[in-house]
Amino acid sequence: MSIDQNKTLEDFFKISLSKVDEEIFKRLNENVPLLSKIGSHLIKAKGKRIRPILTLAMAAQLNDFSRKPILLAAAVEFIHTATLLHDDVVDQSDYRRGVKTANIVWGNEACVLAGDFLFAQSFDLMVETKSIKALSVLAQASCKITQGEFLQMQITQKPDTNLEDYYNVIGGKTAQLFGAACESGTIVAGGNKTQIKASFQYGYNIGLAFQIIDDVMDYTLEKRITGKNIGDDFKLGKTTIPIILAWKESNMEERKFWIRTMKILDQKENDLVEAKKIIDKYDIIKKCKKIANQFIDNSIRALNKFPENKFKKPLVNLAESSLIRTK
Amino acid sequence: MSIDQNKTLEDFFKISLSKVDEEIFKRLNENVPLLSKIGSHLIKAKGKRIRPILTLAMAAQLNDFSRKPILLAAAVEFIHTATLLHDDVVDQSDYRRGVKTANIVWGNEACVLAGDFLFAQSFDLMVETKSIKALSVLAQASCKITQGEFLQMQITQKPDTNLEDYYNVIGGKTAQLFGAACESGTIVAGGNKTQIKASFQYGYNIGLAFQIIDDVMDYTLEKRITGKNIGDDFKLGKTTIPIILAWKESNMEERKFWIRTMKILDQKENDLVEAKKIIDKYDIIKKCKKIANQFIDNSIRALNKFPENKFKKPLVNLAESSLIRTK
Repeated sequence: MSIDQNKTLEDFFKISLSKVDEEIFKRLNENVPLLSKIGSHLIKAKGKRIRPILTLAMAAQLNDFSRKPILLAAAVEFIHTATLLHDDVVDQSDYRRGVKTANIVWGNEACVLAGDFLFAQSFDLMVETKSIKALSVLAQASCKITQGEFLQMQITQKPDTNLEDYYNVIGGKTAQLFGAACESGTIVAGGNKTQIKASFQYGYNIGLAFQIIDDVMDYTLEKRITGKNIGDDFKLGKTTIPIILAWKESNMEERKFWIRTMKILDQKENDLVEAKKIIDKYDIIKKCKKIANQFIDNSIRALNKFPENKFKKPLVNLAESSLIRTK
Repeated sequence: MSIDQNKTLEDFFKISLSKVDEEIFKRLNENVPLLSKIGSHLIKAKGKRIRPILTLAMAAQLNDFSRKPILLAAAVEFIHTATLLHDDVVDQSDYRRGVKTANIVWGNEACVLAGDFLFAQSFDLMVETKSIKALSVLAQASCKITQGEFLQMQITQKPDTNLEDYYNVIGGKTAQLFGAACESGTIVAGGNKTQIKASFQYGYNIGLAFQIIDDVMDYTLEKRITGKNIGDDFKLGKTTIPIILAWKESNMEERKFWIRTMKILDQKENDLVEAKKIIDKYDIIKKCKKIANQFIDNSIRALNKFPENKFKKPLVNLAESSLIRTK
């Protein structure tokens, strides 16, 4: 038991995760070579696989180690990967997780289709669980993801956006899937209503914190650390929390700067450096992290609805670790 | 009864179709204005709504006029519309059904997302039927649609493609959804195994014929009639049945023409006229129509698995009408 205390969720679910991978690759290797290549490219650059781990862990908390959570975990990873593919097309990104994005390698056409394929496969995976309730949760999360992305388009180039709109954006585009990954795991494991709701809260709040930290990193880190282009959000006029908070504090002259750079997108070479200076001046990064921290507190509190179990500590650790990400 | 004989399926299902529309618009009007606009734009330019009609008719054959087939019919139309949106992004089309395509009006970004939204909503609609079997059929059809589109990419600029590959392409990208629209209708109406299989065959074969006629029309009709740009397939080097059959018959010089225009895409002003001349020389259009006719025969034969009912005659008519389309 004392050894377990230091185990991460990834350690706990090594075997289950390899089964998740098996499901994923089985479905990628069907018929169409180009599709397999794109899918594998993305799944291999897989990052930390937080979402499928969450699904597995929520089911495990209720002693479900069956095939159902594994299928759902694979479905969740497919949905996530599909949204990444389409995001990269939409954003015209060229780097993600340290590797060239699929749209750069194979073109937008193939990436739109590959995203559609992964999305369709995710539903086929869910069907296998025969759980209409889990399906419903993930179908609705998928709707909300795209709604979030639409809202994001609508607040783009608007540094004077209010925080509530921003939370709606990241709640949709990021936190919903974290929430649904957890909720669906609890559902198939037969959790009660309170636990189902709590598991959504756990995931959703991690998702909010996760995205806030992500948005902060675009103004703090280096490409060599994050594996993606830094300053992209600034370049594209994306309205994220550092900008929203900085705008609020800014004086007239600084607001003129934000209007020129973020609203009109008339950017000069040193503007990102200048933006960071204003952000530093008002201690914005610290403020963002404090907010993220509050979401993590909510997240951890939600775990109280579950009986004591050996996964709780690593679930707390996972939540906290989303605050100290380097990529 | 004698009056019924002249009724089309659209006449029979006027009320059901308005309920389908209700479901559709209810889900389009949620929260995001831009999304509603794009969705409405497409649904309003709705063409003949063959797919939802098929779902309703298959259920009606088995006396099911409940809400379930209506939900499925809406889901099927959403899947179809989602694929249109993504197709137009992928093909960079500018006209569809006589109106400007959504990607021209709102941009690729919004159209990729809107397609994703409609697709996610379609699963949410299916979930409401609580039929895992119908869900499974439509999820798998969705996978096969994208596989078909991938195969289409792979045979592009290859006039020497064989017919089998072409049938795989149109079987995936078009016929699967026709088949699944029918099959899912029969499933929720409680059809037996033979009927379920037969209804898929009915729809699938119509889909094949439908796409063949569509591909033929790109070499025969005028924009003012079809409402889409004519000669687009030729311009993009899309390998469709008129080209495949023409290639087979072509002499050395004509093959050089196909290689230059369709493989290398080095096209001059009069090349489409020249292409049509070769197609006429070998009576290709007639041959294509004959093949389509055979698929329609298969389709109609499949209806024998259902007991006599007042929808049979209009179902036969619908199948036959796909051969004499003007748009």
